[in-house]
Amino acid sequence: MQHKHDIDEILEKGLELIREKGYTNTGIADILKANSIPKGSFYNFFKNKEDFAIRAMQKYTKRQMIWIESMLGDKTKRPFDRLKDFYQSLIAANVDENCRKGCLIGNMTQEMAGLSNPIGRQAEESLQEISNLIAGCIEEGQDSEEIRTDYSAKDLADYLHNSFYGFLLRAKAGRDKRQFDIFTEMMFSFIKK
Amino acid sequence: MQHKHDIDEILEKGLELIREKGYTNTGIADILKANSIPKGSFYNFFKNKEDFAIRAMQKYTKRQMIWIESMLGDKTKRPFDRLKDFYQSLIAANVDENCRKGCLIGNMTQEMAGLSNPIGRQAEESLQEISNLIAGCIEEGQDSEEIRTDYSAKDLADYLHNSFYGFLLRAKAGRDKRQFDIFTEMMFSFIKK
Repeated sequence: MQHKHDIDEILEKGLELIREKGYTNTGIADILKANSIPKGSFYNFFKNKEDFAIRAMQKYTKRQMIWIESMLGDKTKRPFDRLKDFYQSLIAANVDENCRKGCLIGNMTQEMAGLSNPIGRQAEESLQEISNLIAGCIEEGQDSEEIRTDYSAKDLADYLHNSFYGFLLRAKAGRDKRQFDIFTEMMFSFIKK
Repeated sequence: MQHKHDIDEILEKGLELIREKGYTNTGIADILKANSIPKGSFYNFFKNKEDFAIRAMQKYTKRQMIWIESMLGDKTKRPFDRLKDFYQSLIAANVDENCRKGCLIGNMTQEMAGLSNPIGRQAEESLQEISNLIAGCIEEGQDSEEIRTDYSAKDLADYLHNSFYGFLLRAKAGRDKRQFDIFTEMMFSFIKK
């Protein structure tokens, strides 16, 4: 139990460091310092920094999926409204951080997917898992005739969520949340039936 | 003249290094090595690495703008077709690099805009300049009734190009060019009148 607790804690603190400062800018020493653990312990748990990053991405994805499932699976709301509320929450969380940090998966992709195949593979797996959850909600909206049916739920989900990553990036450059209004307005006008 | 030539060459080689390896992963030593110049020369031209990066971003943007203007200003084609051909060329260039490198401005934004305000400001300036060029072509398409007019050309340009950055990111994760088909299909169906 202690062992598991330690790994979770190290991953959690480390992933927040990487999300804020980037992978290359975060040294193993920084991760150790944030957790007050001696250097030897790190290598008890992780093969190397890349292994750490991949497991941090997995942990982050799992955490995100639980939250996304709770938002997109909320049967008290119509599927279209669930999707809108989900993106509004993502946008609000991002604006709260002054659009500075973004998403760990997006950041790791941009910084490392071209340089490390294992990190690229994990990023794609995470993005697909999240896209599948969104597609599930879109499918419900197609069944209830709220969302257009001339494209597959999967393709609409990829369109929606890939585009959102582009807006996260733009907001990070300009710290301008007005960009998100363009996303919400045009994207939801596009997907609605 | 020699002086100017040197700066251009250092910037050009350095920006390609940063585009491929990232800002933090590229040391001043790497930039010097690529140019076979002694360390002292670097500080004759640039205050520090951040100053170098900002001027590299300016140079990259200028180069991109010349190319974009030639594509989007080609009056032998209809504005809608110019836009489609422009994105097809961007996609083809990216696929040629196996979707590994992406755009210097997008990469710098993702990696550094949250950590360096001067880099964030330069990134936003570059993105705005490019978006303005795209908006100009969209406006022509609105005038010729090929492109919808219920949104402003500027907002449509931001929607189009921000979203494209998200697809560049997704393609980098999965090395999957099929994602670009979703972008092209849905985006151009959205903007057409």
